[in-house]
Amino acid sequence: MKKISEPTVNRLSMYLRVLRQVEREGAATLSSEELARRAGTTAAQVRKDLSVFGTFGTRGRGYAVPELVSALRRILGLERSWRVGLVGAGKIGAALFGYADFRRQGFDIVAVFDVDPAKIGQRWDELVVRPLEELETAAAADALEIIILAVPAEAAQDVADRAVRAGVRGILNFAPVKLNLPETLALKNVNMAMEMEGLSYALASRERAARTTTRKRTA
Amino acid sequence: MKKISEPTVNRLSMYLRVLRQVEREGAATLSSEELARRAGTTAAQVRKDLSVFGTFGTRGRGYAVPELVSALRRILGLERSWRVGLVGAGKIGAALFGYADFRRQGFDIVAVFDVDPAKIGQRWDELVVRPLEELETAAAADALEIIILAVPAEAAQDVADRAVRAGVRGILNFAPVKLNLPETLALKNVNMAMEMEGLSYALASRERAARTTTRKRTA
Repeated sequence: MKKISEPTVNRLSMYLRVLRQVEREGAATLSSEELARRAGTTAAQVRKDLSVFGTFGTRGRGYAVPELVSALRRILGLERSWRVGLVGAGKIGAALFGYADFRRQGFDIVAVFDVDPAKIGQRWDELVVRPLEELETAAAADALEIIILAVPAEAAQDVADRAVRAGVRGILNFAPVKLNLPETLALKNVNMAMEMEGLSYALASRERAARTTTRKRTA
Repeated sequence: MKKISEPTVNRLSMYLRVLRQVEREGAATLSSEELARRAGTTAAQVRKDLSVFGTFGTRGRGYAVPELVSALRRILGLERSWRVGLVGAGKIGAALFGYADFRRQGFDIVAVFDVDPAKIGQRWDELVVRPLEELETAAAADALEIIILAVPAEAAQDVADRAVRAGVRGILNFAPVKLNLPETLALKNVNMAMEMEGLSYALASRERAARTTTRKRTA
């Protein structure tokens, strides 16, 4: 299968979300035009994105919704579950642990780690927060495939290196830092601070532009 | 000031994070090489990114850390605070409300809204969760500048439209949906489900590739 770009994967993910909503609404088919409209793209883009993976839909009838849902689930790796270790039992870690969509999408958190003696030993549902020293033994014993990094920036690279050496294959990184990791590892960064700074930059630059315009107008 | 691209804004944000760490470590200057290394980019890229905003640093001496921190804070719109309304008092809303970095970066949540009668009236620190119908009056009375959308996908576009009509200038969207909004509005999307599906796609495609290799090898 051809390697597809990150924006394409993001669109596939969006199509799946639209199709699930359409399923809940009770429709059995959906045209590429309607799928495009609801996903915020063009029908040509929808057809191009999906053509990479096979032939879906019939001209004039549209896509068969359940068939396309299964195909997208398979393509996106959602038809199976992943064994996940969460490192960092702080506020972000707790929010992620309580995030129902993780489990619904097959991300099964089976171990939680922290370095803080006050957190180690805490009961989180059916789990107990474990000391970070146990990361390597747990990675092997619990067959961890993914690590969620919810640790401070300073600690992230070290934990990531240890996870990679312990055989983990994917990292979902919430630490505001750029990790240096082997290409073979699947890495996704979610950087809340960066998103917020992107937003405040956009607002501030619009404000500067508005001030300049006003100054010109009143000059 | 020239309009700069999103990846550039993201790098500026990363430089600021590195510089703050350097400040905490007690250093007064930093070379572009060291800044690049710690931000995961090249010295040439660092110099190019910063040259857009003026002249920083002295050849052979490096950047003056406090000066560059102030400049980046100003560029990124972090030297002032923003009045924020949070729509959605569910799990994600609560996690965001408790996220200390929001306040630290000048995002001041001054109102929380929900449609659920069980949540309306709840006390959240010094705030009380308000009915969503009050969005427009609150936007005016509390001079809301930014809305954080932590609502289900189906509700997001409607709330966003109402916020825009009420004069809000920026939206931080956590709903897994593509919003159609005027260009003048500053919009940032944080789509956790999409990040997770991106990760599971990367893992699944690596697995498919590995299976193909094994099959070829054993054939």
